[in-house]
Amino acid sequence: MIVLVVNCGSSSLKYQLVNMDNEEVMAKGLVEKIGLPDSQLTHKWNGQKKEIQQSIPDHKVAVKLVLDILTDAECGVIKSMDAIDAVGHRVVHGGEAFASSTVIDDEVMKALEKCSAYAPLHNPPNIIGINACKAIMPGVPQVAVFDTAFHQTMPPEAFMYGLPYELYKENGIRRYGFHGTSHRYVAGQIAKVMGVPVEKLRIINCHLGNGSSLAAIKYGKCVDTTMGFTPLAGCLMGTRCGDIDPAIVTTVMEQKGLSTKEMDTLMNKKSGVLGISGVSSDFRDLGEAAKEGNERAKLALDMFHYQVRKLIGALAAAMGGVDVITFTAGVGENGIEDRAAICQGLEYLGAKLCPTRNNVRGKDAMISTDDSTVKLYVIPTNEEIMIARDTKELVSK
Amino acid sequence: MIVLVVNCGSSSLKYQLVNMDNEEVMAKGLVEKIGLPDSQLTHKWNGQKKEIQQSIPDHKVAVKLVLDILTDAECGVIKSMDAIDAVGHRVVHGGEAFASSTVIDDEVMKALEKCSAYAPLHNPPNIIGINACKAIMPGVPQVAVFDTAFHQTMPPEAFMYGLPYELYKENGIRRYGFHGTSHRYVAGQIAKVMGVPVEKLRIINCHLGNGSSLAAIKYGKCVDTTMGFTPLAGCLMGTRCGDIDPAIVTTVMEQKGLSTKEMDTLMNKKSGVLGISGVSSDFRDLGEAAKEGNERAKLALDMFHYQVRKLIGALAAAMGGVDVITFTAGVGENGIEDRAAICQGLEYLGAKLCPTRNNVRGKDAMISTDDSTVKLYVIPTNEEIMIARDTKELVSK
Repeated sequence: MIVLVVNCGSSSLKYQLVNMDNEEVMAKGLVEKIGLPDSQLTHKWNGQKKEIQQSIPDHKVAVKLVLDILTDAECGVIKSMDAIDAVGHRVVHGGEAFASSTVIDDEVMKALEKCSAYAPLHNPPNIIGINACKAIMPGVPQVAVFDTAFHQTMPPEAFMYGLPYELYKENGIRRYGFHGTSHRYVAGQIAKVMGVPVEKLRIINCHLGNGSSLAAIKYGKCVDTTMGFTPLAGCLMGTRCGDIDPAIVTTVMEQKGLSTKEMDTLMNKKSGVLGISGVSSDFRDLGEAAKEGNERAKLALDMFHYQVRKLIGALAAAMGGVDVITFTAGVGENGIEDRAAICQGLEYLGAKLCPTRNNVRGKDAMISTDDSTVKLYVIPTNEEIMIARDTKELVSK
Repeated sequence: MIVLVVNCGSSSLKYQLVNMDNEEVMAKGLVEKIGLPDSQLTHKWNGQKKEIQQSIPDHKVAVKLVLDILTDAECGVIKSMDAIDAVGHRVVHGGEAFASSTVIDDEVMKALEKCSAYAPLHNPPNIIGINACKAIMPGVPQVAVFDTAFHQTMPPEAFMYGLPYELYKENGIRRYGFHGTSHRYVAGQIAKVMGVPVEKLRIINCHLGNGSSLAAIKYGKCVDTTMGFTPLAGCLMGTRCGDIDPAIVTTVMEQKGLSTKEMDTLMNKKSGVLGISGVSSDFRDLGEAAKEGNERAKLALDMFHYQVRKLIGALAAAMGGVDVITFTAGVGENGIEDRAAICQGLEYLGAKLCPTRNNVRGKDAMISTDDSTVKLYVIPTNEEIMIARDTKELVSK
């Protein structure tokens, strides 16, 4: 079975074509700047790469272009569109309606539209992508895989905020959590790597990238996570502020005369390690700047490591202990010094990092000492394969 | 030396007259509804109590009334005002200007006015109280003791938020922390009770009342705390929401058409366990309602216990471990079931509650088992004695 995995942003479309007989990635690529000048497609297959600059006015044209290149005589990997058995879509927000992936039908489309109220930036492009694929590939089953679904097992004491109850009942204000597909992948993978059933593990997965979230996964089920109603909550991130005293929001709006929209932009785009350092949102840039003596870059990194460490402590308390802590995504997989800084002071949990083993990037690897009672691992995430697996499973039913 | 301790709210004045030769409380009381109809004074001395209803238009009249009753032939405990050697004032916000208590002079008054920008609800009545005492007791030294001062030892990675750096530099947006006088008292007292120097202890103090905050006190110094820029942050409280995804603030303002002031009111007065339960902000009421089967009251308590437990976990990580966890203030001192619920699942830290010992209210008591490596204690707080001690020390210099 061949599955096309699609991840649509407001002006982008990422894709992967996966042969699910052996989980091999046949081709993958990215369409950028859809609807903007300089739109382009970058396509990779068999170790080769092709870039195409052309006008791509909307997501429908983008999907068409992707299908053209996948079936192209030179750069293609399949003979015709008919070789695609199903399409799996990443959808950011499934609200409380979706606790697992689902085959998309008219009812589901209606429910997705409703969820857009919670994720006005993310869900609409996801829906546009689904509609584009439906239009161009009629009859091919489409599956939605949600960033929020894995977190739907959280108990009320973890997902409720201390706000008037009506805001939950009437407006859906609660913790949803994100990166669920990544957290689910890592939970499954660490169990495989350790050779221990996931039902016997208390896992804290640290998905650390430009956006970061941690999840507490107790015996296979997510019981808490650090992102919240939106992906703004948790530790400070590349450009997002993470958790702050909520009174700051109204204070800054008042002091600076900002609208709600301007305040959202400040918190989402101008904050985080970028806002602290004034240098960059990229952790590699910050590491270099800090080494060159930039104190605000060092502060940004110190804050990030400290906040992640505290969140690990909080999630350990949430599960009554922890068996394994995993690091994934850009910073988690490649940030050797970041992992070392985060783990400093976690010895009280029984977690001891091995500096030699920690000298690793981008592959499944244990990084704790032999006598560490809490295991530490790097597990590169793979959200696409989870989307492809869910898609295969659902359309095979 | 006799010290008058004064704590002024917007329409209230609490006082204690303390003989600092033996730290004996000679008299104490409360003036309520200053400037409102039904204003009254309640005065307690030698196990007796007297209530006076009369018009009390402002804090100056309130101070005068307090001095009158303290020197009254019937209910008084001193012969004349001259017996008062110094006045110690509780001041909520000392900003970054005050890392310790201080004798009040003109410069200090100017700095206090500046700090009012950070605590517009709390500092102005504190200043009114100081001015009233200065006017009526000219020549008597006045001392300010700050709720924030104890937390000024926090390192930058703990007190900075992931917001644009300029908001800290230009607007003073940072974590200040509150209840500092209480946290400081408990840190000193637990060291005394355990017979261990505070410099050798890592303490997590849980000040749990209608307002709640936790502090991580490492070897005598506060290194982190859960309240923030304002006393709204941390766990959910009686009527305050505590930490929430900051994007909720702008979302709810937008959805409900609320102003910044209305949103502040919602988060400070209509949220917390009151907002969740719809029953009460009082933890005793909630306990009763939950026992009668009220599910939202039970949810509110579950959330409170769960959030406090997570914060304990976070602060343990902040210190690289913990030696003793203390419970203080209304709920901390008297909430037997609350303490039991909070400690459930903290065994991974080495903290084991003894159900028998936990059956205690309002007195210094160990409540952990003998084999608990992390000690658990009830330590009733006493902010007034700290204010009186600081006042004595400063005016004796």
